[in-house]
Amino acid sequence: MQLDEAVRGRRSIRKYRAESVPDSVIDSLVDLARHAPSSMNGQPWSFTVVRDAELKRRLAEIKNQYCPAEKRDFRADFLIGAAAVIVISVDRAASHDRAVENGVLAAATLMLAAHASGLGTVYMSAYRDDEPAVAEAVRQLLGMPGDVLPISILPLGYPDEVPPAKAMRPLREVVFHERYGVR
Amino acid sequence: MQLDEAVRGRRSIRKYRAESVPDSVIDSLVDLARHAPSSMNGQPWSFTVVRDAELKRRLAEIKNQYCPAEKRDFRADFLIGAAAVIVISVDRAASHDRAVENGVLAAATLMLAAHASGLGTVYMSAYRDDEPAVAEAVRQLLGMPGDVLPISILPLGYPDEVPPAKAMRPLREVVFHERYGVR
Repeated sequence: MQLDEAVRGRRSIRKYRAESVPDSVIDSLVDLARHAPSSMNGQPWSFTVVRDAELKRRLAEIKNQYCPAEKRDFRADFLIGAAAVIVISVDRAASHDRAVENGVLAAATLMLAAHASGLGTVYMSAYRDDEPAVAEAVRQLLGMPGDVLPISILPLGYPDEVPPAKAMRPLREVVFHERYGVR
Repeated sequence: MQLDEAVRGRRSIRKYRAESVPDSVIDSLVDLARHAPSSMNGQPWSFTVVRDAELKRRLAEIKNQYCPAEKRDFRADFLIGAAAVIVISVDRAASHDRAVENGVLAAATLMLAAHASGLGTVYMSAYRDDEPAVAEAVRQLLGMPGDVLPISILPLGYPDEVPPAKAMRPLREVVFHERYGVR
């Protein structure tokens, strides 16, 4: 798929068909994601592929438990219906104080690759700056050592919904020249 | 360009030809970047296109001044040689406590779009968690209000170097099944 087609066509997908996603397809997504840039080329990523129903249920529970009030409309129960959930984590030492950036750069690539493979996903965070219990719960659940930081949770499945096109903010509203606010 | 070709072919580029980059090309990159996912579809981004030599010099100065010891080999002087530097910032309220994630998701898309347009760039951060003076200096320089958070600095130019292919960590080292460390 062409890059611009992948970028424009991707949507956040929270409803998936029951069909499973082969390991070989997931490997091909991770294969691309690990080409993302990383601080000092540290490639600090790990990709934990969760298919076990109980683990998916517990991930959803963690997300629901620590969901900020304003996001309560977006419950995480749909994670259970994903064929797989990829949890992206980052080795603290290898990410040179840029754990979040490194994790998200890989996640962004993986999401585009998923769409290009006919899969749906949606970006979810695996931590909260103001609530260390979130990352700690994910870490405990998946057996991550203390120096491994869970960053992103990406459910994967063949889409069973077609979200409407997004209304985009106009370009001239978001591009400034030389200084902020100057059009 | 195909997505996988863009992902695999992109490199961090720090040396650029003198050739300028038309506004229309930069608009086309931002046009794609704003299709990145954002928290609750807040689309909190602004893209400030810096071409002014003195502003580029000051950005390089800020990056050099606050560079951590371990990254001193990567001086930021090369920013001055970029045809343009795009500073991605995020509106705090519209990013729902996910300013960094939102900024980086747009940056990742913009970097792929740049490569697909024959341009080079390299990911740089516009803040440090442990040193608020960095974001404050960028904000002052570009006239950003206090509720706007500078996240990424992306120099842009036609590449004048061909970095060698990266040695990638093997897939089997980075993919785990069900739990961290389980292959």
